[in-house]
Amino acid sequence: MQDIVRDLYIKNEKKIVLLVMDGVGGLPREQGGKTELETAKTPNLDALAAAGECGLHLPIGFGITPGSAPGHLALFGYQPTDYPIGRGVVAALGIGFPIQSGDVAVRVNFATRDAEGRITDRRAGRIPTEKCAELCELLSAVSIPGVQLFIKPVKDYRAVVIFRGEGLSDHVEDTDPQATGVKPRDPKATSSKGEKTAGIAGQFIRQALELLKDRKPANAILMRGFAELPHIPSMQERFGLDPVALAVYPDYKGVSRLVGMDVVEDLQDLDAQAAALRENWDRFNFFFVHHKYTDSKGEDGDFEAKVAEIEKVDRFVPRILEVKPDVLLVTGDHSTPAVMRAHSAHPVPFLLHAGNLRADAVKEFGERNCAQGLWGVIPGAMLIRLLLSAAEKLAKFGA
Amino acid sequence: MQDIVRDLYIKNEKKIVLLVMDGVGGLPREQGGKTELETAKTPNLDALAAAGECGLHLPIGFGITPGSAPGHLALFGYQPTDYPIGRGVVAALGIGFPIQSGDVAVRVNFATRDAEGRITDRRAGRIPTEKCAELCELLSAVSIPGVQLFIKPVKDYRAVVIFRGEGLSDHVEDTDPQATGVKPRDPKATSSKGEKTAGIAGQFIRQALELLKDRKPANAILMRGFAELPHIPSMQERFGLDPVALAVYPDYKGVSRLVGMDVVEDLQDLDAQAAALRENWDRFNFFFVHHKYTDSKGEDGDFEAKVAEIEKVDRFVPRILEVKPDVLLVTGDHSTPAVMRAHSAHPVPFLLHAGNLRADAVKEFGERNCAQGLWGVIPGAMLIRLLLSAAEKLAKFGA
Repeated sequence: MQDIVRDLYIKNEKKIVLLVMDGVGGLPREQGGKTELETAKTPNLDALAAAGECGLHLPIGFGITPGSAPGHLALFGYQPTDYPIGRGVVAALGIGFPIQSGDVAVRVNFATRDAEGRITDRRAGRIPTEKCAELCELLSAVSIPGVQLFIKPVKDYRAVVIFRGEGLSDHVEDTDPQATGVKPRDPKATSSKGEKTAGIAGQFIRQALELLKDRKPANAILMRGFAELPHIPSMQERFGLDPVALAVYPDYKGVSRLVGMDVVEDLQDLDAQAAALRENWDRFNFFFVHHKYTDSKGEDGDFEAKVAEIEKVDRFVPRILEVKPDVLLVTGDHSTPAVMRAHSAHPVPFLLHAGNLRADAVKEFGERNCAQGLWGVIPGAMLIRLLLSAAEKLAKFGA
Repeated sequence: MQDIVRDLYIKNEKKIVLLVMDGVGGLPREQGGKTELETAKTPNLDALAAAGECGLHLPIGFGITPGSAPGHLALFGYQPTDYPIGRGVVAALGIGFPIQSGDVAVRVNFATRDAEGRITDRRAGRIPTEKCAELCELLSAVSIPGVQLFIKPVKDYRAVVIFRGEGLSDHVEDTDPQATGVKPRDPKATSSKGEKTAGIAGQFIRQALELLKDRKPANAILMRGFAELPHIPSMQERFGLDPVALAVYPDYKGVSRLVGMDVVEDLQDLDAQAAALRENWDRFNFFFVHHKYTDSKGEDGDFEAKVAEIEKVDRFVPRILEVKPDVLLVTGDHSTPAVMRAHSAHPVPFLLHAGNLRADAVKEFGERNCAQGLWGVIPGAMLIRLLLSAAEKLAKFGA
């Protein structure tokens, strides 16, 4: 269905801004109460909602809770179930590692083994992240001819290793036996394409075990989810856009790079993002502006702090309007209700601001109000079409 | 898209109740009037609607009137167009025949033929059901070595025959020529798998014609829709659920068995269903509670009686709430407006009651109110995802 757009896109001068409040969707604290967004005082967003078209979107589908990367893929116009991102790549993106096409990323769990090499604890007693970082430092001594190797801590006993070199592939099975009392499996190729990488992983494991042999409890490693970057056609190729990401957090720069976006580095806050928007206004026609802390506060379970973050973004909205975008979409990549302290499957409110719209009944930006909006509940990956269309970047289909 | 759920489901202790008022959707009797559901006094359902999320669902798709079996398949999470149920199986399920895997069921129409064997009436003058039952009794004398045979009346000139034995298949063409003035076709195999069954059907027809030869007007039979049970992955396999059906009518027990549900037998009314719900509460985590008479009264064209059935179910709702389900969905499998005396394609109202919901604007459970609900009009087969998600039985997609 998406390919229809590739045949229809038109180059023009119009500019689109996608403002993402991460995890903006929420829930009331008590029955009959308001959500975080409904509670927040958002005069600027409300004015945009009143003049624009509103609705809710489902980033992945009914009932599915989006992870951050798939949630953003949807906003960038890619149905996330069509572009699964392997565990290793998720881990690499999650820590902001600049993974490249051709790299193979693998999740590494530190574990404990006995004298016979049998795994006794698949999580090495859940060592803390600092310990994990120290062990990664130790393992950076591993050397394999012809391969560049990066090993980075993720969280607790979890790390990620990235192999970079010629002819690598993710056609390799996990070494994690998923059970204790048995030895880890050898890294085995699942096809001839994976043989070189399986051999490299084997060398990595042997050297790692030698380096770790006197460590307690983390004297072993298990590898899971060999993964290459998925082959995602760029936004340029697919939608004819020249996109740029203005994001503070590495994860979101990572997923932006996946779809061929340029990334402005060293942005620390909304002020810097506003400045970057202005500075880069002439160079691109699609601007992804990301605010992380709505999600962080939701994950913390801090309702009031999430409200405050939404209000902060609301005060930032005039800075976006200053550059006069032709089309502006304000939404989130998923819901993160403070009462749940986690991502959730609830649909995400959006507002579309542009010329030639049918201003609907929504006067204030909020979940329940958006449910009364023009669009109802739509698939997240379709939003890009509304943006392209509002920016007059799509030709007529048929005569 | 559904397979995504298979990879995400989580086992937990939460329990889901699906309360189905068969054919609940309706229409006003006169312009400006209320539907059956809008007319009914339903304080319990209204309270659930006010606290929950509402919408309408399309069991099959836009404009498609659901049969009972596909309507229920949708509610159980299966897109009905992906799991076509052959005419023979529909007929067998429709009369509550306990069809088994490996059986082949075929619709049989009594017909009239002339001395040369040409069909002169494909419906034998639309003989009444009692006559049909008498003829089925007569045909039960047919005997075919190695095959168990069941022939049962359906309605008017329609009957169903079920062949049970080794190596049967539904790869057999209809014998109904779809025209008068010509002879019926021979039952022909459409692949080598169907040859044995085609031979058995041929023997059945020859013996039947002999038994019917002096009957007027029903001296012939036509066979249509050779069908085996479709291969449907169970709800256990697909959604990780342990489901049970609490239904009075055989048809609904039949379609429940199709998706691997346990079935509680010998339930005569809502009281018995409430008792069975309580007694089986610890053994299952998905409870399908079915009420038939909303549909029956709709089919009768009896608006007031349908209203009364809805009110009866409303008084039953507290019995469900007593067991404290974590998630409760109240809906229908299709609409059966009394003014139409038939199933219809109108979308079906639903209400979702659970924790962590966004109570929407709907204060009373009814078709037009639900259209103002959070969800708008959604595919019926997606409801299961809302249930699984509300019961926290689905993991996050991607990191």
